[in-house]
Amino acid sequence: MSAPTLLTDPPIAPDLPEASFQSVSAAFAHFIPLVEAEMRSVIRLGLEDDTLGTLLNYHLGFAQVDGTPTAVYSGKRIRPMLVLLSCAAGGGEALQAIPAAAAVELLHNFSLIHDDLEDRDELRHGRPTLWKVWGEAQAINAGDTMFAQAHLSLQRTLERGVAAERVLRALTVFDAMCVQLTIGQHRDLCFERRTDVSAQEYLRMIEGKTAALTKACCEIGAILAGANDTAVEALGDFGQSLGLSFQLQDDVLGIWGDPSKTGKLASDLAHGKKTLPVLFAAEHDGRIREHYFTGNPLSTGDIDAVKGMIEAAGGRAHVEQAAQSAFAHGLEALESVKGNAPAIKLLRELAQSLLGRAN
Amino acid sequence: MSAPTLLTDPPIAPDLPEASFQSVSAAFAHFIPLVEAEMRSVIRLGLEDDTLGTLLNYHLGFAQVDGTPTAVYSGKRIRPMLVLLSCAAGGGEALQAIPAAAAVELLHNFSLIHDDLEDRDELRHGRPTLWKVWGEAQAINAGDTMFAQAHLSLQRTLERGVAAERVLRALTVFDAMCVQLTIGQHRDLCFERRTDVSAQEYLRMIEGKTAALTKACCEIGAILAGANDTAVEALGDFGQSLGLSFQLQDDVLGIWGDPSKTGKLASDLAHGKKTLPVLFAAEHDGRIREHYFTGNPLSTGDIDAVKGMIEAAGGRAHVEQAAQSAFAHGLEALESVKGNAPAIKLLRELAQSLLGRAN
Repeated sequence: MSAPTLLTDPPIAPDLPEASFQSVSAAFAHFIPLVEAEMRSVIRLGLEDDTLGTLLNYHLGFAQVDGTPTAVYSGKRIRPMLVLLSCAAGGGEALQAIPAAAAVELLHNFSLIHDDLEDRDELRHGRPTLWKVWGEAQAINAGDTMFAQAHLSLQRTLERGVAAERVLRALTVFDAMCVQLTIGQHRDLCFERRTDVSAQEYLRMIEGKTAALTKACCEIGAILAGANDTAVEALGDFGQSLGLSFQLQDDVLGIWGDPSKTGKLASDLAHGKKTLPVLFAAEHDGRIREHYFTGNPLSTGDIDAVKGMIEAAGGRAHVEQAAQSAFAHGLEALESVKGNAPAIKLLRELAQSLLGRAN
Repeated sequence: MSAPTLLTDPPIAPDLPEASFQSVSAAFAHFIPLVEAEMRSVIRLGLEDDTLGTLLNYHLGFAQVDGTPTAVYSGKRIRPMLVLLSCAAGGGEALQAIPAAAAVELLHNFSLIHDDLEDRDELRHGRPTLWKVWGEAQAINAGDTMFAQAHLSLQRTLERGVAAERVLRALTVFDAMCVQLTIGQHRDLCFERRTDVSAQEYLRMIEGKTAALTKACCEIGAILAGANDTAVEALGDFGQSLGLSFQLQDDVLGIWGDPSKTGKLASDLAHGKKTLPVLFAAEHDGRIREHYFTGNPLSTGDIDAVKGMIEAAGGRAHVEQAAQSAFAHGLEALESVKGNAPAIKLLRELAQSLLGRAN
């Protein structure tokens, strides 16, 4: 007879159902509800009778504006899955890393609250952004709450039996990553005022803004597992390459993708975004700068013309090549890990599904 | 012959000069330069060649807008001193807690960056606030950087020989306090839109906004020292009471203080601030609500009239009494601590100097 389990907390069991590692979709189905339960539990800490909780639940897709519980699409939860699979790949218990998985998702969502305000974005997943509903001051503050809660969440791995030294090392990776995120965002904000950003500078910016977080997810999973430094580094390398190649693919899709599939309302060119294809091409064809860097909105005809120039100057091919090369580097790093084979296989499949490849 | 010491880092020495504990001013003179050196070191982490560092140094009073080093008045550094003296009082090495002292000061300053923006304050210590110089988006982001760095700083106590379990426990107190700070700020922002805030609600708000941080300072110092739970709780109680009584005294000075001494440009009444004397008095004299809660600026004559009504309704006496009672409670908690007597004596003297009492 098995012992009774608590309904409020996900079980901390050493006996994971094998089925949860048989496919990427099975892993998501098994783990993500546990991660979301942890997130819901953490964002309640100390907030029992305060309306602040409604702002947090709304942003995470757990509630409507009036606090009514709901379940809307609120992100793919890729990052938590990277933590859990990296923990398993490094020889650890994925369930022990659930609070760390919740932590990276809370951290990611904190950064979205502030980024939406900094970029004046009014919609996310089809709903008004937090600052549009509750105003700027409350949005800054609610983001700060979630930032602190992300830390509390990661600290909860201690209660799941992870040694204090490992938790502390994971926290240091976590906060160093947070600094990198804000450096990336700082550069991005500076770039908006400049017309002379180089392709190289742009790459450094997205390394901070996108790749630092996916890198830290994999490192944290491996650290909590007690993996050796070589494995931590290799998994971090995999995570960084994955984030980088995903962002570069996103840059290509932002210009040449089908808006009905990318979920973007319009081409990045319509928004005047200077992503890598644009910046690389502009270094090889002066007309692009002349036509596109004017600060004025482009007509549909202009957009098609600039799109053609970027492609002709090699902007598309260069970025597709860079994405592919980062992706290949990431897989190589992953294959070097001496660890749990089913988890490593799932990390590879997850990466392939994200990059739309199944080689 | 003594071993050579590094010039870049403050020494980690078990042999503190006894003189540094002989008076509050000697302690400040000895420890605060070490805390500031640690702060300067932490805010450089990962930021070597980025302009983001200039924003952080400017806010902390370490640099001018163009990055030129400077030394302006940038705060009393009371909170770091609470950490260090509580560590010593709890039987620990104050020098081991230097990175924690730097952490609470960085955390306090992060919250000022965001609060200045949320409250649209344009000046701090006579200089334009960060958001006034670099804009809102950069200010939100720079605050986030400093928030992460505050965590990195606290984690550096590990390098000073504090056990991982203690560091982790201190981090959990730190982040739970951060959540409390944001709850306090959330309430404060909500209060601005309400005219029916009760004195009780106001007290709960300042418990989060002011007292939670001073409480955490003392708890963290004691935890790092390895003090027992009774001592941690008593020192936390002392810190909370100190923060509370300081805030209540500030509320009284904001209305009846001499502007040339308080450093405030005008009475809180001129700004329409609903602090405790106002809220308490309004519950006893309906005319105060009628005259003062109108949302319109008051004339000098109006201010004097309302001031008289508040005093007559017992608003001043009530808050002075509450401040005194919190202060007495704090000293009682402090005296109960079985620890290092010279450090406990300095904590008492520091509290007395803050509250302008030397009984």
